[in-house]
Amino acid sequence: MTRAMNFNAGPAALPLSVLERAREEMLDFEGSGMSVMEHSHRGKTYERVHNEAISLLAELLGTPLDAWDILFVQGGASTAFAQIPLNFLGPNMTADFVVTGTWGEKAVAEARTVAALGGGQAKVAASTRGDDKSYVRVPQQQELDLTSGAAYVHVTSNETIHGVQWALGPETPFPKVTAPLVVDMSSDILGRCVDVSQFDLIYAGAQKNLGPSGVTVVAIKKEMIARGRKDIPTIFQYRTVAENRSLYNTPPTFGIYLVRSTLSWLKAEGGSVAMEARNRNKARALYEVIDRSGGFYRCPVQPAYRSIMNVVWRLPTPELEELFVKEAIQANMIGLKGHRATGGIRASIYNAVEPAWCDALASFMAEFARRRG
Amino acid sequence: MTRAMNFNAGPAALPLSVLERAREEMLDFEGSGMSVMEHSHRGKTYERVHNEAISLLAELLGTPLDAWDILFVQGGASTAFAQIPLNFLGPNMTADFVVTGTWGEKAVAEARTVAALGGGQAKVAASTRGDDKSYVRVPQQQELDLTSGAAYVHVTSNETIHGVQWALGPETPFPKVTAPLVVDMSSDILGRCVDVSQFDLIYAGAQKNLGPSGVTVVAIKKEMIARGRKDIPTIFQYRTVAENRSLYNTPPTFGIYLVRSTLSWLKAEGGSVAMEARNRNKARALYEVIDRSGGFYRCPVQPAYRSIMNVVWRLPTPELEELFVKEAIQANMIGLKGHRATGGIRASIYNAVEPAWCDALASFMAEFARRRG
Repeated sequence: MTRAMNFNAGPAALPLSVLERAREEMLDFEGSGMSVMEHSHRGKTYERVHNEAISLLAELLGTPLDAWDILFVQGGASTAFAQIPLNFLGPNMTADFVVTGTWGEKAVAEARTVAALGGGQAKVAASTRGDDKSYVRVPQQQELDLTSGAAYVHVTSNETIHGVQWALGPETPFPKVTAPLVVDMSSDILGRCVDVSQFDLIYAGAQKNLGPSGVTVVAIKKEMIARGRKDIPTIFQYRTVAENRSLYNTPPTFGIYLVRSTLSWLKAEGGSVAMEARNRNKARALYEVIDRSGGFYRCPVQPAYRSIMNVVWRLPTPELEELFVKEAIQANMIGLKGHRATGGIRASIYNAVEPAWCDALASFMAEFARRRG
Repeated sequence: MTRAMNFNAGPAALPLSVLERAREEMLDFEGSGMSVMEHSHRGKTYERVHNEAISLLAELLGTPLDAWDILFVQGGASTAFAQIPLNFLGPNMTADFVVTGTWGEKAVAEARTVAALGGGQAKVAASTRGDDKSYVRVPQQQELDLTSGAAYVHVTSNETIHGVQWALGPETPFPKVTAPLVVDMSSDILGRCVDVSQFDLIYAGAQKNLGPSGVTVVAIKKEMIARGRKDIPTIFQYRTVAENRSLYNTPPTFGIYLVRSTLSWLKAEGGSVAMEARNRNKARALYEVIDRSGGFYRCPVQPAYRSIMNVVWRLPTPELEELFVKEAIQANMIGLKGHRATGGIRASIYNAVEPAWCDALASFMAEFARRRG
């Protein structure tokens, strides 16, 4: 078998060793005579997997379990867009949204629906949307129109479709924010080092950097959980999930098993420090070809905010973009077509995307430009 | 490897052929050089799996796609307990609940929370809860206190914990119900033949009869979808899921792939007609030992309502029950401990539980009674 070079935006490539392990253990998990997905979620065999996934995630994120809870829920970021305001945006409260792409827009829209039902308000504190509906940067601090006493402020650390990423290094990019800070890290969680102490709630669908689709991880400060409403359905309360260690109802056990395996791999590879170095190199290989192509390739995103997870670029014409994607597939490179909302090309280069694939893509790009430029 | 005889209540045994196929296809799905879980949910390869799962489910349930929608959502029945009233229990409306066990109780409780927020009402139209908190039967028609013009009536076709199952043959057991009928079939979907035309919304977590945990199936009449509220969050509207063929957001692709494989197996085995015959035989083997044990084993459920999916029984003392479970494990029989809320013994004998396992369990029970009775 030739393994495809997979640049899918999510679901995305998984580490080969994780898949091999899943194959090996499929029929007989740890000598139990059953698949892990046939085990009870309340049995000791599965619980060891579950607990290891929680502790690995806490360790790798840097969210110690005395101050934080690690939750496994379902429904992806799209569900969190509704569930977070349900929990934290009560009557007469305002939540502030910093919008830097499509996912931020969707988060505001769902929060507004929740607010309309519950009597609160969801406000756009800043949006970098351009007149042509594009997003090419994150806002400056002085652009933030923050609400005093806001229930929370919501940001999207990496916009998957637009390839726009916040700088989230040791210095917080949100010095003015005093309200609880909620971040959608769906497409860059554990893809780089982040000082998580600036956040109060971090959430991410697993299907980009952490495992398969169907598992959503939430890291939430215990003091944030305590702020949550108690008059909403039990199943929607993060409190319920936390109090039951994500076992209030049946969790997606096989998905969590795969997340556990992916986190084990990530730790062995050196954690987020190593991943950031690796991902920066992968991204650099692509951005260099773009910037040296004499305008044949064009990345619309301002250099300071270019994502190291989703590299987006355009070619001179839609026809050339189509040809690029077609020839890339012939060269065993999958998933390069840009999102239907933006067009163009997108290479998603999450943790499990191998550096060699990015090198191959960079060479292919250079060669394509030579032939067609 | 010796395969365990798995009587887990869910997650539960899967057909061996489904697991073998998953193992075989794990690294290279249909020659694509990727696992199915690495494919885009918007790509042709996954979409074929997705569409086949939908059409198989419609065919096997008997819910033609011109009048019904088949949805794949997440969060299990526990999420549906909140999501259904969110969609259908608007202000000034009443929903009626027929409660025959713990899951029905939970469904009412979540609906009451939704009703309290939205101005509607969730009413218990009948409950068969005994003074000792037990459930041993379903109600007679004359016991139903139905609300005229109710938004819907909710029933639980099989109560997993109490082993109480409605008769749902060709004649409806709900002749008096004129409101839309909503049924939680989490633990007996496709485990027997049912005239589904009497229902308007059928839902079930996959992890008992259909696949792994993490996928919830919903079969809903199109006219029911049209009744749903439009002012709730987009992601919670069944309308959204239907309009987008369960691809509004990223679905649990690997879980749906396993559901597809399980449904293929189910169809090849003869569908729900064959499953009902098989499950009735499996159940009979166990109930016969119970009823012939001279009182050593005791099934609390009235004979007409004994489940063919979850067979529950007691032994003379908790100590003997503990010993029974322990010796069963030594005989390679897993998952027989009753639910913590009820105690006792429970054998869950869903579709993928092999008849030979039930025969072995029946022999073990007879032998245990002989030795300890």
